[in-house]
Amino acid sequence: MEQSFLAYLRGRCRSLPQVELGIGDDAAVLAASPHPRIVCTDQVIDGVDFLSAQHDLVDVGYKAMAINLSDIAAMGGQAESALVTLALPKKNATKIAGEVYEGILQAASEFQIAIAGGDLSTYRGRDVANTGDSDESRHNTESPLAISITLIGSLPDGPAWKRSGAQVGDAVLVSGHVGGSILGRHLRPTPRLELSRRLRELADVHAAIDISDGLSLDLDRLCAASGVGIELDIDAIPIHQDALRLAQQSGRTPFEHAWSDGEDFELIVSVSEADASKIAAIDLGVPLTRIGTMVGRTGLWKRVDSKFERLAPQGHSHL
Amino acid sequence: MEQSFLAYLRGRCRSLPQVELGIGDDAAVLAASPHPRIVCTDQVIDGVDFLSAQHDLVDVGYKAMAINLSDIAAMGGQAESALVTLALPKKNATKIAGEVYEGILQAASEFQIAIAGGDLSTYRGRDVANTGDSDESRHNTESPLAISITLIGSLPDGPAWKRSGAQVGDAVLVSGHVGGSILGRHLRPTPRLELSRRLRELADVHAAIDISDGLSLDLDRLCAASGVGIELDIDAIPIHQDALRLAQQSGRTPFEHAWSDGEDFELIVSVSEADASKIAAIDLGVPLTRIGTMVGRTGLWKRVDSKFERLAPQGHSHL
Repeated sequence: MEQSFLAYLRGRCRSLPQVELGIGDDAAVLAASPHPRIVCTDQVIDGVDFLSAQHDLVDVGYKAMAINLSDIAAMGGQAESALVTLALPKKNATKIAGEVYEGILQAASEFQIAIAGGDLSTYRGRDVANTGDSDESRHNTESPLAISITLIGSLPDGPAWKRSGAQVGDAVLVSGHVGGSILGRHLRPTPRLELSRRLRELADVHAAIDISDGLSLDLDRLCAASGVGIELDIDAIPIHQDALRLAQQSGRTPFEHAWSDGEDFELIVSVSEADASKIAAIDLGVPLTRIGTMVGRTGLWKRVDSKFERLAPQGHSHL
Repeated sequence: MEQSFLAYLRGRCRSLPQVELGIGDDAAVLAASPHPRIVCTDQVIDGVDFLSAQHDLVDVGYKAMAINLSDIAAMGGQAESALVTLALPKKNATKIAGEVYEGILQAASEFQIAIAGGDLSTYRGRDVANTGDSDESRHNTESPLAISITLIGSLPDGPAWKRSGAQVGDAVLVSGHVGGSILGRHLRPTPRLELSRRLRELADVHAAIDISDGLSLDLDRLCAASGVGIELDIDAIPIHQDALRLAQQSGRTPFEHAWSDGEDFELIVSVSEADASKIAAIDLGVPLTRIGTMVGRTGLWKRVDSKFERLAPQGHSHL
């Protein structure tokens, strides 16, 4: 399958100037750039990150790209090219690969990403058959579809937005609305690359992270990395309509969903008061809501009357 | 597991100047380079590319790095940093990850590669748990260990060594000795990065490929990509002692093993007669043997008396 599928892919992948030599050789060549490179990788696995019985594999392919694009956006970088690795169940391998790639190519087209290369393997296939196949009994033929994508981009002038750069007194902003992504948004998130690019022009972002595992959990990670805490304006947290809809089914409150649901893929950024004011005056196409202020006392806090009350981060940790 | 394992990894990974920001943020930052970047990715999967019941996982980790390093060498590039993605069986996930990383770090240390980042998932874990885990019955808990590595390097001045650049009249050279790697060499191949670097200084390499799927199969791929054929000097093919040893068990000839066994990870290069003579006069630390001459008639050929006889490529195709 690999040779004919690669021929199909070469036909589908647009030539973009960032890739000098793409699919078909032992490695790809990316055009020289005067900027530092920014790179990330994230995998999605059937039964862990999605359910093939339930989710459209075109959406799953799109999501695998989008979550990586979101990571680049959260660092203040620009995404340019991708390497795509698929581990495919033997049954319907070509059909599955085609559907997944359809979604990958949709995201690539939308964000001008070149597919520079990748790898395809089929479980129990003969990727390198001289290791033998005498071990038939050990693995289920239902070994899960796994999609691993590496994104490579560049970092414009100025530093990367680390998690560790937040300063006491910073205003903390969150993009869009959060909670309830499980109702469908999690499959087609909008990576905030354009917002990231605009923010980089406008402001000196001290720290940033994208919300993959829950607003409060990722906010807590950012605070912990920076050695600060946050005094939250709880009522300001922008709750997504999906969180309201989900609350009607779940028995939890819309706030709880906004606080702890994962896969919003919105950005949290920490900027100076002055930059926050500057940003607030400009239409960036996506709402940016101030949800709190960084304080010296570590942890997540809300003020109740004149006292601070500690809030527990909740969300979905990896592994 | 991920947080504590990442902390362990950060401690084990050496700081190298090519990585400005490594493990721990949403993406890594690689130092700017004036050269084009060269990138490749290859995965190895239990039951397909190795057998965990039989092979030491430290070796498997080393191999996962080495096969990617070999791809960079085959393009005439220099390897600099790696992103490592592991999909882990739930049982003994931390132990398995530790063993695999041990081999990865050995290769990284040997070839001065920085581990810039990666991803860890455990099958049926809760990488992103809001997709639920209601689908318990679909996948075997024995889902196989999969290791996917992306290598990023740079391409010194001059073009990449494509498969398609061989010219009629070129001398074709192969490094080292081939055949019988299954006896153990396939787990600890020596990527020919140093040889590649020396060849780049000495000669204008027209085309190159590394032997992953068998001497004759990869040679055929190089010829096909270049639109040429090769007249082979069959007796010159450097047969590895392992091919002789394997022939005693297999009932096949040592030549057959040299011709079709995969995973030698030696280089095949196509250079002008003049460059071949220049190279032959210099000790490169690894033998480079001339095995034939490129001809206009496509395919693999040997001369028997005054006639050409066509040879069939054999090896292990992917998928």
